[in-house]
This record gives sequence, structure tokens and C-alpha cells, in this order.
Amino acid sequence: MDINETFTDTMDTVIAMIEDGRFLKAREEIITMEAADIGLLLDEISREHMLRVFRMLPKNLAADTFAYMKSDQQQYIIESITDKEINNIMDELFMDDTVDFLEEMPANVVRRVLKTTDAETRRLINQMLQYPDGSAGAMMTTEFVDLKKEMTVREAMRHIRVTGMDSATMDTCYVIDRERRLEGDISLRKIILSPPDAIISDLMDPEAIHLHTSDDQESTAYLFKKYDLLTMPVVDGENRLVGIITIDDIVDVIEQEATEDIEIMAGMLPSDKPYADASSWDTFKQRIPWLLLLMITSVFTTGVLSSYETQLAAFPALIAFIPMFMGTGGNAGGQASVAVIRSIALNEVEFKDIFKVAWKELKTSLFCGLVVAAVCFLKTILVDARYMDDVTMLTAFIVSVTILLTIVLAELVGAMMPLLAKKVGFDPAVMASPFITTIVDALSLVIYFQVIRLFLPI
Amino acid sequence: MDINETFTDTMDTVIAMIEDGRFLKAREEIITMEAADIGLLLDEISREHMLRVFRMLPKNLAADTFAYMKSDQQQYIIESITDKEINNIMDELFMDDTVDFLEEMPANVVRRVLKTTDAETRRLINQMLQYPDGSAGAMMTTEFVDLKKEMTVREAMRHIRVTGMDSATMDTCYVIDRERRLEGDISLRKIILSPPDAIISDLMDPEAIHLHTSDDQESTAYLFKKYDLLTMPVVDGENRLVGIITIDDIVDVIEQEATEDIEIMAGMLPSDKPYADASSWDTFKQRIPWLLLLMITSVFTTGVLSSYETQLAAFPALIAFIPMFMGTGGNAGGQASVAVIRSIALNEVEFKDIFKVAWKELKTSLFCGLVVAAVCFLKTILVDARYMDDVTMLTAFIVSVTILLTIVLAELVGAMMPLLAKKVGFDPAVMASPFITTIVDALSLVIYFQVIRLFLPI
Repeated sequence: MDINETFTDTMDTVIAMIEDGRFLKAREEIITMEAADIGLLLDEISREHMLRVFRMLPKNLAADTFAYMKSDQQQYIIESITDKEINNIMDELFMDDTVDFLEEMPANVVRRVLKTTDAETRRLINQMLQYPDGSAGAMMTTEFVDLKKEMTVREAMRHIRVTGMDSATMDTCYVIDRERRLEGDISLRKIILSPPDAIISDLMDPEAIHLHTSDDQESTAYLFKKYDLLTMPVVDGENRLVGIITIDDIVDVIEQEATEDIEIMAGMLPSDKPYADASSWDTFKQRIPWLLLLMITSVFTTGVLSSYETQLAAFPALIAFIPMFMGTGGNAGGQASVAVIRSIALNEVEFKDIFKVAWKELKTSLFCGLVVAAVCFLKTILVDARYMDDVTMLTAFIVSVTILLTIVLAELVGAMMPLLAKKVGFDPAVMASPFITTIVDALSLVIYFQVIRLFLPI
Repeated sequence: MDINETFTDTMDTVIAMIEDGRFLKAREEIITMEAADIGLLLDEISREHMLRVFRMLPKNLAADTFAYMKSDQQQYIIESITDKEINNIMDELFMDDTVDFLEEMPANVVRRVLKTTDAETRRLINQMLQYPDGSAGAMMTTEFVDLKKEMTVREAMRHIRVTGMDSATMDTCYVIDRERRLEGDISLRKIILSPPDAIISDLMDPEAIHLHTSDDQESTAYLFKKYDLLTMPVVDGENRLVGIITIDDIVDVIEQEATEDIEIMAGMLPSDKPYADASSWDTFKQRIPWLLLLMITSVFTTGVLSSYETQLAAFPALIAFIPMFMGTGGNAGGQASVAVIRSIALNEVEFKDIFKVAWKELKTSLFCGLVVAAVCFLKTILVDARYMDDVTMLTAFIVSVTILLTIVLAELVGAMMPLLAKKVGFDPAVMASPFITTIVDALSLVIYFQVIRLFLPI
């Protein structure tokens, strides 16, 4: 992508200027850059340089850039600048960015920041910090255009001119009554296109889709997607408008939820910290619980295998196919479980569809099983039999029947478990490959030995 | 979520009204509903009822609802209504929704729809249909506010009043020159707050971040996320402004890319069709290639096992632990590979970090390996040895050393393979559990027999 290459070139040039001490020249370049890019730039240079460059930024750009910086850099800046400078940043920062920033700061930094803000902002910040992590209240910001329902269009336009500059969006304005209760919403285009004397309450949509501060981020994201919204208003327990959520924060939620599901599906505890930033110890803590749990459940497979020790001793060639059953069963079960888990996450499938899903998986697994069994039969005869003396047509037949049954059972188990988990209130994502594999491993061994017993004279 | 329950109640009431033939009563309810919900409602009732309800909708709401309907329903409607009615829908539909709809229609429906539109719209639709699937050109819509750079604020406001009503967003307006080349962008709030005689080109941001029609959807989504944008302009090869992309479409892209990665990671071919809508045959085609391929690669594990047949015959108890190595190795390798694959997808890790990743995984895997090996030793002595006579301290030791080495190797292989795949231009997601497991299965067996050979007198 060419935009990325140009971007890397500019970055390198500016970094070189800073390292050569040509700060004024660097500043000329930097003030034409996007805040997100300046944030990346500041991450590449020494702390002393970072502080110096940051203090050279115009007030507006400094606050925008601050929102894109990492916590430890934000802390270093706050600890190095004056109260006046802190106040300038806080004035410009959106409330949701302020809260995100303060949540990561130690108590003394929070105290210092709060000291520089006025009483009303301080009250607001303290209230925002109390919403539980992952709730709509914690995600919202407090800069929005609120119109009184009895305003005329002319009054509304005047109000927008005054408060619109600082709001997170102007496309939609929110209409409230005297007690600040949400009455409806109205688009700016509708206001602009209406006669100056029209009354807002006659023009607004009284059915504004809204959130409560306690709604969780997953259902918030669901509503945004379902109705293709760009912003949503948030109300408190008394239906008073307290904030809005914009879709750019929802994008982060969607990505975070997907990452979380992917981690759980791979048998890890989900983590807020990106892999690149996590220490080996953090990663260890994410991985060890499932590794241990699944290792311990191997007592079942070990048990099954040891109970068939005599049969195995009589036909040692039969042992050699065990990894194939386990691998194929695990893959088939993993495919089905992951397909169903993702469908549940995207609200496409729910528990009441369980019979439809079972029927579909039965057909799919029979198709898959028959094809794999046929190819497996040929592979056993044409490849495996070449270097193993005791592999016969009967062995190939037994192996193929086992793999067919294993696939059918694996896909059924894989598809059903996430739905059952959802029903009883567990996270369906837990029922993915690692867990399913452990069940299917034991099942495939039992099937194998039953098939052997049926066809071999043991 | 209470909003969902209220919603289901309303839906059920309206469906009952329709089935009782009380259409006018139903209409009263329906016209207060969101278009997305009406789309869901129409999916729940018979085709005859659907057509009747659809024709009762006000023009605006009909077009909005049409955009939320499934392809086969859209086709049924188009085939059942008059040219005049088709024209009404097409007039109101955003261009991106028009193109999404037409792409799924058979040629005769496309012809009929194009016939009802005016020459200019027809030309535009034909051009839009030519952008490759998944490109910025195919995602964009053509309804936006474009301002000439020499306009005054007063002229711009007049222009916005005329064209803004139909545009996808008004928050940002795009500034062009006489040849329609993109010159910059300006927010509506800036226009509203500027003196009426100011010139747009003096107020605009001349560095508008923009896309080219050929940019792919993945890098488009990346730019939206990086810069927290709500809309982006799209230019053609001559830098002429041809459309805009709004973030609600990006949300779909992000979710679709995540689903695709998840499917590939679970050893499936990615599919556009949601699991719930796919037939057993569709699902079979998604699953069979990897199932077959991985089954065939089991010749390696079968080969390794059969070549150690003599050792196994001498110590049959050793066989019983094979599933545990394979399972644990697969889990550890899957954890590492999925963590790295996701980090690559989120642009957090790239090939140049390979040594950092290797070092981190070495430490993590040693932590994990030592803990699992210790617990495994205890499990073998305290549980397995109870029902297997030939399990000794030495067996437990061999098993534990093997599991330690397997975990270390599995995590290293799991973490390195996606980075190498990325480097040589493959999709890193392919290097997830199913593939890694197959490699690790063979490795763990080789390790096991080497450890046995080292410690047991064979």
C-alpha cells in the first residue's frame, strides 16, 4: 500500500531531524501530520525528545496526540509538565479519552490531574470512573449536542453554534426535556432544512434507539451493527441523557471481542494486553490453565488404551493408525465447533436451532466421512501397506470404518457442545478445538477398538 | 437485554396482526419500526404477505427496508412490482446498497432495474459494478457533499441545503477543483462556525486522508481504525473524487475478516455464506480439503510409530501415553500459533520481530513445560500407575521429560510458522492448530522414542 510507504519515509525523515536536534524544522513537518501518526512517532524517540516535541505542539494537536499515546508515555508527560499545561490538555480531551487515560494512571497522577480541572469536570470524571469496565457507561463520552424539545429551529442552530464545536459528532443531536430525560433525536440535516420557526419536538424522531449506562459492550456493538448507527445516546436509571457512544469505539470493541473469542477457542485465557506487549509471564498465565487441565484429562485416553493392551500386543500394526484417528477426529470436531461458535457470536444461530444444526451436521459429516474413508482406504493399501508387513485389506477396512464413524461423531459433538454450553450459560467459545479434541480423542479410541473387536478374531 | 425482549414482543404482535389479515392495524405499528427490524419481520411471514406489507410502506421506509432484505426476497419483490415502484426504490436507495443488491441478481432482473433508472444513474451503476469485489471502489457510495474550493461559506451552506439531504453523511464535506480532483476536506461544524464570506479553500484541511478505488478492504479498514475516521473519500486513477466510504460498512468488513481468519485457523476454506444459510453441501466443500490433506499427512506419524514397533511391543504401557503427548503438543502449538496469527492480523507483530517472538516463546514454553511436566509426573505416579502394573518412576520420568520437550518445541514451531508464512506471502492463518498439530504430532513421537532410547535398556 503506497500510503504506508510514504508514511514510513516521512516518519524516518522527521525522526532523523529530531535526533540531529533540528526541532523547529521537525515541528514544521509534524504539525501537518495526523495525531495518530504523531503518537507513533513519539513512541520511536527518546523520552527527553518526546517531551520536547510534545511541548512544541499546538494546544489542540497536543490533546489529540495525547489520546493516541501509550499509558507509560502519558504518565511521563503528565509528571513532567506544569499544572497549566495539564489543564490545557484536559480541556481539549474528550471525556472518554480522559477516562481511558486516568484508568491506567497511579493514584497520585489521578489526584494531580483532577486538581487542575474545575469542580464540575472533576465531578463528571469521578462519576465516569465508577461505571464498570466494559459497560456502555464506561465507553461513552459526554460531549454531545443536546436540544430542548421546545426550542425553535433558529434557537437550536444558535445552540449548535455554541456547543457543537466541542461535541464528538454533530450529525445527530439529542432532544431532552426539562429534567434532561431523553425525548428523541434529530439529524442536523433535518434542522438545516427546516423553517426557522418550526419546533424541535415536532421534527424529532421520538423513538431514538438508546442504551443504558449498564448495558454491556457486546450488546452495544450488536445494536450498532443491527441498525447501522454512527452514534447512540446513553441514559441513566432515570432515563436522563448522560452521554453518547460513537461507532469508532465500537470498532475497537468488535475487534477486541473477536480476539477474545479466538483466544478462548485456542485454549487460552483472554487478555487485554496485546501479544506483543505481554511478558512471557503474562503469556504463561494465559496458557497454563488449559494446558494443565487438558493434560490431566488425558487419563481417559490413557485408560482406554491401557485397557486394550492385549489386543494391541496381538496386532502391533494397529497402533500406528491411532494418531491418524485422533488428528482427523480433532480436525473434524474443531471445524464443526468453530463454525457453530462463530455463528452464535454473530447471532446467526441459537439454541432453538439445535435440531436443524444436528441434521445439517449429520449430512455434512456423512459426506466428509465417506470421502475421507475412501481416500484413507486407498492410502492404507497403497502407501502404509508398503512398509508395514502386517497391514492387510481387512486392516484398511477397519481403519476406514473407524475414520468414518470418528468424523460423524466428531462433527456432531463439535456442533452440539457450543449450543449446549450457551444454553447452560457457559461461553460457547470454550467448546472449541482443544476441548472437543480431548473428548473426540477418547471417543475415537473406543470406536476403533469396537470396530476391531467386530472384525478381527481377538 | 430488555430492548431485545420488547422487540420480540412487538414482532410477535405484528406478525399475528398480519396473519389475521389486519393489515392497516399492522401498518400503524410497522411504520414506527426501524428499517432493519422491518427487514427481519418480512423474513418471518409468507411471500404474499411480505409483498403486501412492503407495498404499504411509505416510499422512504420502503427503500431503507429493501436494503436490509435478503437477496431472494429482493428478487421476489422486484419481479412482483411495477416499473414505477422499482424507480421509487432506486431513487431512494444509496448507491452502495444498489450495487450490493444488483450484484446478487440474475441478468434479467438487473436489466429491468437499469431500464427504470435515468441514463446518468445507469452509467454510474454500470461503472460501480466493474470494481472488483473487496475493493474500496466496490464498497463506496456516491452520495456525498462536494464543495468547490472557491465557494464562500454562504455558497457552501446553500449547496449543502440542496445536496445534503441525500448524502450518506454531512459531518464531513469534500472539497474539489474544477476537474473534480480532491483538494481537501472540511467539517460541517467548521463551515457553520465560520463567517459567511470566508472562502472554503482557506478553511479546509488540505491533507485529507483518502483511498483509491483499487485499495483492498483490509487496508481500508486498517486506515479507518488507525485514524478513528467515520468517513473516507475515494479517488480514481486521476485523483478525481468518485465516492465515500462510511464506517458502518467497515464494521462489516472487520467482522467478515475475523470470521475468515477464524475459519482458516480451524482448517476450513473461508466462505461468504453464513453457517446458518449454507447447505450441507456448501459446508462439506469448506471442510473436505483440509480434512483430506491432514489425513494424508498422517503417513508420517504412522511411519514413525511403525518403525518403533519393536520398542512398543517390549513396553506396551508406553503406548498409552501417546495420545497425551499428541494432545498437549497440539494444544501448546495451537496456543502459540493462534496468538501470533492474531497479532499479525492486528498489525502488532511482523516478520522483523521473529527473534523477539522466538525468545519470548522459548521462555514461555519453558515455564509452561516445567509446570505441566511436574504435574504430569505426579499424575502418572498417583493415577495412571494405579491401574497399569508396568508404570514405574522411570516411566513417569520419561513421560515428563517428553512432555516438557514437546511443549517447548510445539510453542516454538507454532509461533514461528505464521511469521514464516507471512514472509513468503502465504496467509498466516493457515498455520494454526490443524496444520501445526500435524507437525507437532510427528515431532512429539520422535522425541518420545529418543527419550525412551536414552533412558530405557532397549
